[in-house]
Amino acid sequence: MKQSSLFSKTQKFNPQDEESLNAKLLLRAGYVYKIMAGVYSYLPLGLMALKNIENIIRKHMVAAGGSEIYMSALHPKSAWEVTGRYDTLDVLFRFTSFYSRTDYVLGPTHEEIVTPLVKANVSSYRDLPISVFQFQWKFRDEKRAKSGLMRGREFYMKDLYSFHTNQEDLDDYYEKMTKAYTAVFQELGIGDKTVLTYASGGTFAKYSHEFQMITDAGEDLIHLCEKCHVAVNDEIYEEQNTCPVCGEKNLQPIKAAEVGNIFKLGTKFSKAFEMKFKDQNGETKEAIMGCYGIGVSRLLGAIVEASHDDKGIILPEGVAPFKFHLIETKRGLGQELYEKMTGEGMSVLYDDRDVSAGEKFADADLLGLPIRLVVSEKLGDKIEVKRRAKEELEILNYEDIRKL
Amino acid sequence: MKQSSLFSKTQKFNPQDEESLNAKLLLRAGYVYKIMAGVYSYLPLGLMALKNIENIIRKHMVAAGGSEIYMSALHPKSAWEVTGRYDTLDVLFRFTSFYSRTDYVLGPTHEEIVTPLVKANVSSYRDLPISVFQFQWKFRDEKRAKSGLMRGREFYMKDLYSFHTNQEDLDDYYEKMTKAYTAVFQELGIGDKTVLTYASGGTFAKYSHEFQMITDAGEDLIHLCEKCHVAVNDEIYEEQNTCPVCGEKNLQPIKAAEVGNIFKLGTKFSKAFEMKFKDQNGETKEAIMGCYGIGVSRLLGAIVEASHDDKGIILPEGVAPFKFHLIETKRGLGQELYEKMTGEGMSVLYDDRDVSAGEKFADADLLGLPIRLVVSEKLGDKIEVKRRAKEELEILNYEDIRKL
Repeated sequence: MKQSSLFSKTQKFNPQDEESLNAKLLLRAGYVYKIMAGVYSYLPLGLMALKNIENIIRKHMVAAGGSEIYMSALHPKSAWEVTGRYDTLDVLFRFTSFYSRTDYVLGPTHEEIVTPLVKANVSSYRDLPISVFQFQWKFRDEKRAKSGLMRGREFYMKDLYSFHTNQEDLDDYYEKMTKAYTAVFQELGIGDKTVLTYASGGTFAKYSHEFQMITDAGEDLIHLCEKCHVAVNDEIYEEQNTCPVCGEKNLQPIKAAEVGNIFKLGTKFSKAFEMKFKDQNGETKEAIMGCYGIGVSRLLGAIVEASHDDKGIILPEGVAPFKFHLIETKRGLGQELYEKMTGEGMSVLYDDRDVSAGEKFADADLLGLPIRLVVSEKLGDKIEVKRRAKEELEILNYEDIRKL
Repeated sequence: MKQSSLFSKTQKFNPQDEESLNAKLLLRAGYVYKIMAGVYSYLPLGLMALKNIENIIRKHMVAAGGSEIYMSALHPKSAWEVTGRYDTLDVLFRFTSFYSRTDYVLGPTHEEIVTPLVKANVSSYRDLPISVFQFQWKFRDEKRAKSGLMRGREFYMKDLYSFHTNQEDLDDYYEKMTKAYTAVFQELGIGDKTVLTYASGGTFAKYSHEFQMITDAGEDLIHLCEKCHVAVNDEIYEEQNTCPVCGEKNLQPIKAAEVGNIFKLGTKFSKAFEMKFKDQNGETKEAIMGCYGIGVSRLLGAIVEASHDDKGIILPEGVAPFKFHLIETKRGLGQELYEKMTGEGMSVLYDDRDVSAGEKFADADLLGLPIRLVVSEKLGDKIEVKRRAKEELEILNYEDIRKL
């Protein structure tokens, strides 16, 4: 893509009304635009990054047997009354249709929708297991929305729900999802920063699990076991004071942001909605459920918090809207290389703007694409290569660029 | 895809609480699931069809220079007060955050959001024109929501907004969009049913244009000129009584459903939000805007209304979740062909279920995929081919199937 065709502009200075670093940088780089506290719009580069995250997650959810669906954001109040959460969940946005007088809820999560939906398609044990997921903008009336993309009143999420005939099948699937999540965070380039964290399991299971990404900007405190590389969330650690895996006693407190969670729901929702099936003996049983979430827009915020310097964002390759940022020191000098690279399917943002080289370099650092290429008259056919995350410059041939 | 892995089930009988034929058929075929009046969830086949429509539209919007963004569904009341539409637009869902006390609107359209957003990125005529679009679930408190997917309280839409320095540039772009829309409907397989319809242009232009798809289930009455193949909407026809293109007087009244519209907004929104730029002479001017919408989920409903028979849906190839529906008369008989076809990248739904051949044929008709293939012991290596839209059966070799 040519940078001149990008309508979003970068900003030299931090916006006044933002506390969080991720929002400051993403706003300045033109990835997002702020609508109001906790609500952002996504400009072309931000949407591309979000879609990259989405596509990586989708691949792993499909590989784990998930079927993609889309559930409505408008929910009837009646569904939330069935579970009692209409009165207990404080983040619900509630309103009434003027015309139909229906009471609505804006969906912050979809157990109340997915359970009757799957119920309508299940009668026998032969219909199970079922695993469905969606990508969706969700809504929460958050008390504080000052963490930028990390705690939005409107946010993009992947939520998957699984339905099983028995505990063992849920346990197996839960294990499969743990692996799928680990693979997702690995592919996103934040595997080394993301730790499996033991959290409360509700009434059905001893533990649920959060995937916590270590960052000072995180709103959570977790306790990291350096012996077995798992962590415990604050609530559980106050009760137990040990690592739940190896029993180690001295865990290191550390700030982190929750980027995913997996939870054994058991029969809580299938009981409420009478989501039953006939087993092999003709007996009627309630399905056993699990739910598995990843905050897609939150991830973008968390990645920026964990990966930046004083010049700007540093994006992992899996997330970056483009792999290469091509800069020319004289107008038109990069055109041929740009055409060659895009012709071979390489992902390039070509800064063809009529601005100073200094401004281009500053913007490249701010935008944070993984590899910066510079062409100049001095270099001739050679190309200057710098990784955003490193200081070293290399001078390479085109053939070397293809191998990067 | 194997049909046994599809969790959605077909239904033999029409749902009780639906008046509209599109919803009845899409519910019975397992494309959608009804949440409440005007609100549907999309099951795997329905979501695939929706994504097919989305991808065709996206291709043409990008080709016409559009940049994809995503704007929030939560809008601040304040933005809608600027244009006065907070009090005049009856379809607005309005509510208040418990925590922040912010008054919100759920976006039914995005002029109030896109204008300040683009304004923040424009200072000079050099920054224009700009054309941005999004795919988004939108919300309207519809008085009547009895037309299934054709009039939802939550619905999927593509909206594009363009910003220009002068009238001529808007006119050119409007012409370009007219062509892009025509190409979209052509590629969706409904080009022959969709007519350009003259509608009121507001204060800025003589006309706007609707793309109306001819169907008895449409909520609109249009007047079709058989001489020049355009139409006039009811409002304009009552005023003018002639074809606006050729002057023909006897236009044929016909029912139709609006599937797209294009509108010259002029300076209505740029004035309200002071969206200005400096022109070549240093003078400050307001940008001239256009907006261009396509109802994506409505299109799916309209296509089903216009293309079905008493056995079920008949989907155009561009929309259908799969091109081929492979049926076997004995279990396992289709496996080899399925693997061969998918291995070569063909799009196949393989009915590998343990149900009667009669049930399979009935479901194939209900689902409405374009080409049904049947393998049986009697046919040997040959394959029975039937197009959903036609009665004839053909017996073909595999090589012929590849050419379909």
